[in-house]
Amino acid sequence: MNPTLDTRLHDAVSRVRQHWRGTRLMDGLEPGVEGTRALLDVARIYRANRLEIGRMRPLLGRAVAGLFFDPSLRTHTSMEVATGRCGAHFVYLQGGEGTWKMEFDEGVVMNGQTAEHVKEAAPVLSSYADVLAVRAFPRSGNRDETVIRAFARYAGAPLINLESALAHPCQGLADMLTLDDLGGGGFKGRKVCLTWAPHPKPLPQAVPLSVVRAAILGGADLHVACPEGFDLDAEEMERVAGFAADTGARVTHTRDQAAATDGALAVYAKGWAANDRDHHSELAAQNQDWTVGERQMANATAFLHCLPVRRNVIVTDSVLDGPKSRVIPQAANREPVQAAVLLSWML
Amino acid sequence: MNPTLDTRLHDAVSRVRQHWRGTRLMDGLEPGVEGTRALLDVARIYRANRLEIGRMRPLLGRAVAGLFFDPSLRTHTSMEVATGRCGAHFVYLQGGEGTWKMEFDEGVVMNGQTAEHVKEAAPVLSSYADVLAVRAFPRSGNRDETVIRAFARYAGAPLINLESALAHPCQGLADMLTLDDLGGGGFKGRKVCLTWAPHPKPLPQAVPLSVVRAAILGGADLHVACPEGFDLDAEEMERVAGFAADTGARVTHTRDQAAATDGALAVYAKGWAANDRDHHSELAAQNQDWTVGERQMANATAFLHCLPVRRNVIVTDSVLDGPKSRVIPQAANREPVQAAVLLSWML
Amino acid sequence: MNPTLDTRLHDAVSRVRQHWRGTRLMDGLEPGVEGTRALLDVARIYRANRLEIGRMRPLLGRAVAGLFFDPSLRTHTSMEVATGRCGAHFVYLQGGEGTWKMEFDEGVVMNGQTAEHVKEAAPVLSSYADVLAVRAFPRSGNRDETVIRAFARYAGAPLINLESALAHPCQGLADMLTLDDLGGGGFKGRKVCLTWAPHPKPLPQAVPLSVVRAAILGGADLHVACPEGFDLDAEEMERVAGFAADTGARVTHTRDQAAATDGALAVYAKGWAANDRDHHSELAAQNQDWTVGERQMANATAFLHCLPVRRNVIVTDSVLDGPKSRVIPQAANREPVQAAVLLSWML
Repeated sequence: MNPTLDTRLHDAVSRVRQHWRGTRLMDGLEPGVEGTRALLDVARIYRANRLEIGRMRPLLGRAVAGLFFDPSLRTHTSMEVATGRCGAHFVYLQGGEGTWKMEFDEGVVMNGQTAEHVKEAAPVLSSYADVLAVRAFPRSGNRDETVIRAFARYAGAPLINLESALAHPCQGLADMLTLDDLGGGGFKGRKVCLTWAPHPKPLPQAVPLSVVRAAILGGADLHVACPEGFDLDAEEMERVAGFAADTGARVTHTRDQAAATDGALAVYAKGWAANDRDHHSELAAQNQDWTVGERQMANATAFLHCLPVRRNVIVTDSVLDGPKSRVIPQAANREPVQAAVLLSWML
Repeated sequence: MNPTLDTRLHDAVSRVRQHWRGTRLMDGLEPGVEGTRALLDVARIYRANRLEIGRMRPLLGRAVAGLFFDPSLRTHTSMEVATGRCGAHFVYLQGGEGTWKMEFDEGVVMNGQTAEHVKEAAPVLSSYADVLAVRAFPRSGNRDETVIRAFARYAGAPLINLESALAHPCQGLADMLTLDDLGGGGFKGRKVCLTWAPHPKPLPQAVPLSVVRAAILGGADLHVACPEGFDLDAEEMERVAGFAADTGARVTHTRDQAAATDGALAVYAKGWAANDRDHHSELAAQNQDWTVGERQMANATAFLHCLPVRRNVIVTDSVLDGPKSRVIPQAANREPVQAAVLLSWML
Repeated sequence: MNPTLDTRLHDAVSRVRQHWRGTRLMDGLEPGVEGTRALLDVARIYRANRLEIGRMRPLLGRAVAGLFFDPSLRTHTSMEVATGRCGAHFVYLQGGEGTWKMEFDEGVVMNGQTAEHVKEAAPVLSSYADVLAVRAFPRSGNRDETVIRAFARYAGAPLINLESALAHPCQGLADMLTLDDLGGGGFKGRKVCLTWAPHPKPLPQAVPLSVVRAAILGGADLHVACPEGFDLDAEEMERVAGFAADTGARVTHTRDQAAATDGALAVYAKGWAANDRDHHSELAAQNQDWTVGERQMANATAFLHCLPVRRNVIVTDSVLDGPKSRVIPQAANREPVQAAVLLSWML
C-alpha cells in the first residue's frame, strides 16, 4: 500500500463527490462541469499509477456486471481491465447469447420469444453487483433508448451507460481527457472540429452527441461540420446548450468541412445516419468527399475517432497511419476514465 | 482481515463438514438435514458480511470452472460473483460456443460432429479448476441427465450441478434461505404451496423437484397443486420421502389450487411439462386459470418463483409488482448459498 | 507471502531472462534451448506450489487479453486460470462473437463486412493489457498465419500465440514438460514417436510441428511416422533443424509406424491434412489402420495427444482408457508452462 497515492486518490474522489452525488452515468452530463473536471483528475491519477493501483486494489470485494446487447472490443476490454485493476470483479454477460431473451415492454403477456423481463433482470443483477454497465444500441431508428432507460428505471445499483442510441458517456470522458492532453492541460477556447464522414451504415448519434457534450463541458470552440440532411439531434443539442454558458463554449454548425477543420486542435470524424434514415445510402454516397484525408488535416493538429473505424471510408490510411493520428491514446484513455467513475462511486 | 469474522466463518464451515464430507452437489440432498442447516448458516454469515469477506478473500488461489450448456442470467452471475468475492477465480465456459462440441456416449467412433469426449473434458477441467460447475438441461425428454452424470463420473474435482433435468440444488438452497427468512428463522410445520402454472414450453421438473426437496429438508407442510396430467416425477418424489420422517415434513398432493394456496406462507409457482409431453400445449392451454393472480394470493403471505418468469402467463403483473412478491430477495439468495458451498469445500 | 518460494521464483525467472529477453512466443523456438530449459524450471516451481503462488499473486495489477478466433477448452481455461492464479486479470474475447468483425488486409476500402482493422485492434488491446494472447487457426489452406502475424506486427504488448497455422508453442512447452516427467527429468537421446493418425478433417500442422520443435529442443531421438502424402512442412522442418546440432537431437522420417512406435518413451498421435488437401478424405480413409491401438502401444511406454481427441479414430478407447495414456497430465501441464511464460515476462 502506497500511503501517498492512497491519500491522493481519496482526496481526488472526494472532490468528485462534492460536485456529483449521483450514481447514474447516462448521457455524461450528470457530473456537471466541476464534477467532470474532478473525474478527469481521478483518471489522470489512475493513468499515471495504473500498476500501483492494481496492486492496492482499492475496490476489493466489489463486483461490476457488464451486460452487452451489442458488439464491443474497447468498451468491454477497458471496462473489465479497469474493474479488475481496481480489485473488483467484472462479470461479462452477453444479451441474448448465453442469457435469456429479454422483454422491455410493459404489460405484455409473455407467451412468445422473450423469457425474462427487465423488471426482474435489472434488480436481480443489482443484487449481485455493486454497479451495472449496459450497452444497448437502438433496436429501431436512431432515438430508441428503451433498454438503457428500462435498466435505469428498474436497477437498484449504480448504472453506467456503455453506449445507447443517444449517448456514449465513457467515450465522451475519454475524449475530454484526450483533448486536455492535446491542449496541454485543457482545451478551453480551443477550436475543435467534429466532422461527419461517410459510413455504409445508418449509425446512431451516440458518439457525435457525446463529443458535443464533451466539447461543451470543456469550453471548446466547437465546429460541427456535416452535409445537408445529416444534422445532429436538435433536442439533444438543446439539452446540452445550457452548459455552454458556464464554460464559455461556442458551437458553430457548418456545411463547410474545410473551414471547420482549418486550424483545429483536433478533427474528430464520425459517421452517422442521414436524418432520412431510409435514404442513408444514397445521401452518404453523395458525400464521399467528406472522407478525412491529408487535405482536411493540412492545418489541423490531431485526428481523433472513437474506433472501430472503417479505413478509407471515414478516414484515409495515410491520416490514420500518419503522425497526426491520436486514436490509440484516445482509446487507451477509456480505461482511466472508467476506473475514475468506479472509484468515485465505490472507493 | 477481521479475526472474529474469520473465526465465525471457519467455525460455521466446520459444522458443515461434520455432517457433509462429500464434494458433489447433484440433487441437493447430499448435505442431509443437518448439513443443509449448517450450510445455510454459512450463507447467512456471507450475506451479512459480503463486502468484508470480499476483502478477506478466503479462497485466494482457488479456481472454479463454470460450464454452461444452456442460458443463464442468475446462475452465471451469482456463481461468478460469489466465487470472485471469495477470492477465487471463475472461468466461464459456454458449451458448444467457443468450446468443442462434446461427446457423451461411450464407445463411439468419433468421426462425426463431436470433437471432444467428456471422458477427457471432465478430468482436464478438473486439473485446472478446484471446483467444476455444470449447467445442462435435458437434451431430450424430461429425465435426461446424461451430461451432468458424465461429469460426475469423470471429473476428479468437486462438482456443482447448476441445473439438470431433475435438480437445481443451488436454487433449492436459496429457496430454503428465503423460506427461513419468511418464517422468521425457519419454516418447520409452516404451510408452503408449490403450484403448477401455465408455460408455453414443456419445461423439465428440475426446479419443482428442488422446491419439494427444500421443503422436505426444512420440515414444511408442503401442498403441491397441479392439474391432472402434470404430476411430479414419482421416482424422485419417492427418493426424497425418506427425509420427511427426519424433519416432520408433510406432503399433500392436490388438484385444488385454491385450497393449496389458502393460508400459505409462500406460494411458489412454476411451469413444467405435461406428463404427456407431446400434448403439453393443449393441456397447458386447458389450465390457463392456474396463472397466479390476486385471487390465489389473497390468503398467502409471499409469492416465490425461481426466475426467469413469464409475466401474465405464470403470474400476473399485479402479483409480481405487488408487496407480496419476494422473487428479488429470493434470487439474491443465490449468491450466499453458492458461496457457502464453495467455502465449505475449499476454506 | 512465502519468502523462500518468492526467492526461488525470482531466481528461476532471472535464469529465463538471461537466455531470453524477447516478449513474443510465436513458434516456440524463441526462448532457445537454454531459455526453454529455464522456462520449464519456472513451470515446475509453479506446478509444485500452485495454491501458494495463487495466494502470493505475484502478477497483481497486470492484465492479459485473450482473443480467440477459434474454439478452445484447454487453452482458454488453462490460460485464464494461470493468469488468475498469478494475480493478474484475464479478459476473454471471442473473435467475431461480441466483438467487431476484423480486417487483416492492408489498404482495403472498408465499406463491406469488416468493421475494425487489426492495425487499431492490436495496439488498442495492447494499451489495456500487459500481454496479448491470440488463437487463430488458418482461414484457408494450412499455412495461413495472417492473423497472428498481423498481431505480432501491430501489437505493442508482449504476445503469445495460442495456436496458429504452423505453431502451438504453449502445447510444445507442455509436451516438453510431460516428456521430461516420462524420462525422469529429461528425454535427451530417448526415442519419441510422432505418428500421423486418421482424422476426418484436414487439420493444420500446428501441433505436430510444435511436437517436432519440442523434441528437438529437448534432444530427443525423434521418429516421425506418416503415410505417403502426409509429410510435414519442409520449410518449418528446416527452420528447426539448426537446433538439433545444439541438443544432439536426431529426426528420422519413416512410413513404418510399427518401427517408429517400437520401444518409444512416448507415442504422440495427431491427425493432420494430406499435402493434397483437396483429397484429404480419400487419403485419410486409405490409412485407417494408422489409428493407434494396443498393437502400436505394445512396446511403448506412454501415449500422448494434445486433445481434443477423436476416440476410435485417432486412438482406440482401449489405449486412451488404459494405463499408458498420459493425456490428462499432459493437458494439465498447460497451466504451469503458460504461467511460466507470464511470470518470465511480468514478474
